[in-house]
Amino acid sequence: MELNLIDKNYIKLIKEFLGNGSLNELNNLLVQLHPEDLVVLINQLSLDERITILSQIEREILVKVLVNLDEPTRDLFFESYSPAEIANEFIELMDSDDAAFILAQLPEQIKDEVLSNLQDIAYASQLLALLNYKENTAGSLMAVELVKTALNASVQSCIEEIRTQAENVNSIYVVYVVDEFERLVGLMTLKNLILASPDALIADVCNKQVVSVSTSASIEEISNITRKYDLVVLPVVDAIGRLVGRITVDDVVEIMHDEADEDYQLMSGITEDVVSTDKVWILSRARLPWLIIGLFGGIASSRFLELYEDQIRIHPEMAFFMPLIAAMGGNAGVQSSAIVVQGLVNDTLGTKNIMQKILKESRVALLNGIICSVIILLYGFFFAPNSNMSAVVSIALITVIVFASIFGTMVPMLLHKLKIDPAIATGPFITTTNDLLGIAIYFSLGHVFYHP
Amino acid sequence: MELNLIDKNYIKLIKEFLGNGSLNELNNLLVQLHPEDLVVLINQLSLDERITILSQIEREILVKVLVNLDEPTRDLFFESYSPAEIANEFIELMDSDDAAFILAQLPEQIKDEVLSNLQDIAYASQLLALLNYKENTAGSLMAVELVKTALNASVQSCIEEIRTQAENVNSIYVVYVVDEFERLVGLMTLKNLILASPDALIADVCNKQVVSVSTSASIEEISNITRKYDLVVLPVVDAIGRLVGRITVDDVVEIMHDEADEDYQLMSGITEDVVSTDKVWILSRARLPWLIIGLFGGIASSRFLELYEDQIRIHPEMAFFMPLIAAMGGNAGVQSSAIVVQGLVNDTLGTKNIMQKILKESRVALLNGIICSVIILLYGFFFAPNSNMSAVVSIALITVIVFASIFGTMVPMLLHKLKIDPAIATGPFITTTNDLLGIAIYFSLGHVFYHP
Repeated sequence: MELNLIDKNYIKLIKEFLGNGSLNELNNLLVQLHPEDLVVLINQLSLDERITILSQIEREILVKVLVNLDEPTRDLFFESYSPAEIANEFIELMDSDDAAFILAQLPEQIKDEVLSNLQDIAYASQLLALLNYKENTAGSLMAVELVKTALNASVQSCIEEIRTQAENVNSIYVVYVVDEFERLVGLMTLKNLILASPDALIADVCNKQVVSVSTSASIEEISNITRKYDLVVLPVVDAIGRLVGRITVDDVVEIMHDEADEDYQLMSGITEDVVSTDKVWILSRARLPWLIIGLFGGIASSRFLELYEDQIRIHPEMAFFMPLIAAMGGNAGVQSSAIVVQGLVNDTLGTKNIMQKILKESRVALLNGIICSVIILLYGFFFAPNSNMSAVVSIALITVIVFASIFGTMVPMLLHKLKIDPAIATGPFITTTNDLLGIAIYFSLGHVFYHP
Repeated sequence: MELNLIDKNYIKLIKEFLGNGSLNELNNLLVQLHPEDLVVLINQLSLDERITILSQIEREILVKVLVNLDEPTRDLFFESYSPAEIANEFIELMDSDDAAFILAQLPEQIKDEVLSNLQDIAYASQLLALLNYKENTAGSLMAVELVKTALNASVQSCIEEIRTQAENVNSIYVVYVVDEFERLVGLMTLKNLILASPDALIADVCNKQVVSVSTSASIEEISNITRKYDLVVLPVVDAIGRLVGRITVDDVVEIMHDEADEDYQLMSGITEDVVSTDKVWILSRARLPWLIIGLFGGIASSRFLELYEDQIRIHPEMAFFMPLIAAMGGNAGVQSSAIVVQGLVNDTLGTKNIMQKILKESRVALLNGIICSVIILLYGFFFAPNSNMSAVVSIALITVIVFASIFGTMVPMLLHKLKIDPAIATGPFITTTNDLLGIAIYFSLGHVFYHP
């Protein structure tokens, strides 16, 4: 298949077919599309057009499209179906992880009706179990469809076993090996299966180094383990080691991507997941909280500066370097907290002793502070030789950089201990606090120097 | 296998065994470790201890460990081997992508000697081809090991084909189907293979919807396509569609992770990839460039403020709100550029018309600016009713937020056009420029108001 490019002309053509009801021509185009391309296409259309397109797609593809649509479109689509129809025509055809994802977003009452209308009671009870796991744990993200074989089976009987089980599983990357208590003890890859003699025992040819997570594992654990061991699929076990599901790498990739985006947005002072095509007021609402925090920080620093009104009047040159001090405090603080946040996320923090980290950050900050101060002193020497401003500024600068770094190190570590996402600390929060801190240090020092 | 926890006690034990030369006890522990855990362990040891451990690991595991070690350790380890030994005892045992990765980091002369010492000439020429692709393209990242079958083969003969080819390929997720010109036309999954009748033709049972990238595809294209189509392995084709290699999802995950870390660091004003356990001077060096840019920004704003010395002397209250104006300009600018940068990275920018984006950002900024200004006016009304400062501040605030947003939108889009990583724009660069911009706007407006 050629990769279909969903460009402007393609969308124009689709809209034309939709407009003049040329459903045959439309279908000829749609059947060529990968489910993911259909999602891209549908996102470019109006709600009415979306519903028409969805009604044209064959059921097996449709269930893959539905899971990737936004909630309003999916809700509107489901409106014309009864809970029994949603159960039998859609949910039954989906992988359990997709089904659980969609069910979790339905209103409580409809969700229950859909579940009770499923023909396959075993499947319904599996879905119910998935829905009961805590959000964002391995249990809530896994699919229960998997292919497994017994440790004491032969390769031949394993292959027959796979044939029976394969009907229900969309993609098979490995076959899991379980003992008589259903505990996960190994895995067979396609290579193992094909290279082994049919009479060999699974126990003799399987790979016993199998990495798994428990149902309660967090998203960070899942993504770190998948990344560390280069897995394409991660088995999930219960508290006593029994195989209960699997998470495929595409879900992990999606999770990692969302996490990175979220950290990036938090750090930029954006509180909701927004994209630039969102409505103006949604974009505005996502940004306002941090702007207002910045505003109150600014008001607080203006109150503080009022205390030094006379000093500013007599030595207006004190004011000249305020932006420099504030900016340097903010930058140094953000740098320190970014290193800590990344260390926490990637588990590369090494020892977690707060005091050691703070001492190390202080040394880095002191070194950078001294270098910056020397630059300021040189600047003062050549461009303002008759003022002792550059001495005050350079001492304030070292102090501010060191304090901002310590603060930038401590805050994310404390947030982490309080189970709050530390990424929040690298954003406007640390900048605002360090602005204030910087100005306070600068003017206190200035006061000492100018009024001995 | 139990997941081995490489904790303090475990490392202490390993160091003891290393110290008193208990190599047998050491080996008993080492054989239980997954290559990735060995890497974690080795990273906690001294250089000498590392070399001793490496010499104890069996060759097949060792090559997987070597590729994940840092360069200095690997260089030191290779020092005791001749190019011929490196070629035959290590490179020959590696997957081609790992081999190319390691070769690329060797000094030019040693690299050539190693290549010319490889026994397997075909492999050497494949490695040479991989080394010739441009860095960070699909060609430079792919492995050439893969399993393929002909379109007109039967399932039975395909399975036999796999048996022959599988020896050279470490992990097989899918079998690619090629036509008589070696062009990629389809793929067979484990499920296809096991469910199909042995007599069936591959052409009839294979999946023809196969997504691929060209050798020149960028890292962003690779990661976007893998994510979009939920792939575990991505085939790479040459300019005329012939199958030349494959990229596995674990490499894509690694790439995505590194990219996210890099963006995060750039944005925080850190220019090198550092972790908190790095040495003080390395941490310092990674941060200094942006601090110095901030410093020069600060010096520039102090020069600018000198022009308004008299105004500050007469109206020191002008200075009180400088931090507020500078901080708000910085925050608003970072927010706008973060949205653009994410849109560029994730390809969710929608239309790429710069003017439209700028108009939209201006509307968002105007809305937020007005809300913030109202807060300032209310503050002024209740807390400083006799001053017209709050009017000046609120007008400056709207102007600064709008300008900062426009600037924050434009800069990353321009950088992207110039093929520079736009993430650089969300960092101290935009904060520093917007500090300057904000103060300039504020004092120019203040000048008009106070000296009509």
